[in-house]
Amino acid sequence: MLDEVIGKMQNRQGRLIVISGPSGVGKGTVLRGLLAADVGTRRCVTCTTRERTDDEVEGKDYFFLSEQEFRSRIDQGFFLEFAHVHLNFYGTPLAGVQELRDQGLDVLLEIDVQGGLTVKGKVPDAVLVFIVPPSYAELERRLRDRKRDSEESILKRLENARGEIQQISRYEYLVVNDEIESAVERLHAIVIAERLRITKAE
Amino acid sequence: MLDEVIGKMQNRQGRLIVISGPSGVGKGTVLRGLLAADVGTRRCVTCTTRERTDDEVEGKDYFFLSEQEFRSRIDQGFFLEFAHVHLNFYGTPLAGVQELRDQGLDVLLEIDVQGGLTVKGKVPDAVLVFIVPPSYAELERRLRDRKRDSEESILKRLENARGEIQQISRYEYLVVNDEIESAVERLHAIVIAERLRITKAE
Repeated sequence: MLDEVIGKMQNRQGRLIVISGPSGVGKGTVLRGLLAADVGTRRCVTCTTRERTDDEVEGKDYFFLSEQEFRSRIDQGFFLEFAHVHLNFYGTPLAGVQELRDQGLDVLLEIDVQGGLTVKGKVPDAVLVFIVPPSYAELERRLRDRKRDSEESILKRLENARGEIQQISRYEYLVVNDEIESAVERLHAIVIAERLRITKAE
Repeated sequence: MLDEVIGKMQNRQGRLIVISGPSGVGKGTVLRGLLAADVGTRRCVTCTTRERTDDEVEGKDYFFLSEQEFRSRIDQGFFLEFAHVHLNFYGTPLAGVQELRDQGLDVLLEIDVQGGLTVKGKVPDAVLVFIVPPSYAELERRLRDRKRDSEESILKRLENARGEIQQISRYEYLVVNDEIESAVERLHAIVIAERLRITKAE
């Protein structure tokens, strides 16, 4: 009985960890910190129809697809979830996720709240983590500091942030990204704790 | 909305963390390790009717009560849970737990599975953690090494361990105590993650 219990826990498939949060909150930085700290987590490479920038590598940063190819994969049920953002498609390949999970690796997905809730519907043991800034003022400061967006785009992102934060109660964990290192540690604690969770089906 | 969400999380009351596991598994050592590592956790001093040993301090290790006094407190609803073990009573004072929780501190309770399930019934947001040895052979070795029990008592404890482990699926987290330091880290991750959990009632 004991061997069985421990064996099941050690050999079970990896979890899907969904990371959402407003644009500019630092999701990417926190994820990179976690990937560097934890040997059992991986990022799943997603597909997109947007143009590849010079510093992006096919198959590492994204799989770059034509819109036609992307649409045909949607029809084939290729994606766990996909979204249409600013005229471009982004999608998470179901097979890519499954392959990592079958190796016992936890898969990190950085997607929006809508996508997160879709994933939870399809994969009930997915873990939903919401990353928030310590305040809206700080979020605005971060968006301005990265000098990537127009004034209009910044205002739009702040408005979207307020909308997403309204949905926080549908998520499972809240991580305040006040300081990168602490935020990475908190996310890491969530990942470790979820590995230790006794699932009722077992 | 954001201030409200973060404020609620920071100001909410501490959780009750129930630690169960077979005699000899090292629960006490793991708990002491966690208390040393985490500033937000406390142990609640329990009451007992057993005799005080020379190195135990009243109010620190236990509150030592006469059986009459203990029984009268049971009638007054003084205890969150109590148990009758080897002719002695042990009980967790409800007020002591509540006082710590109101200060935002997580309260660690080291009690048996029966007590843990009783607590969960009364405090639905209690967190149930089961600590297991890596194997029964290792548990037997630890029980023999501590030279505290008779042969009969060791066999009885091993038999009880098998009984308790049968009930593991009623618990929420499983920590294998293969090595103290790792077990403390795992338990700490659970405590941190539970602090970040978004509760549906909020």
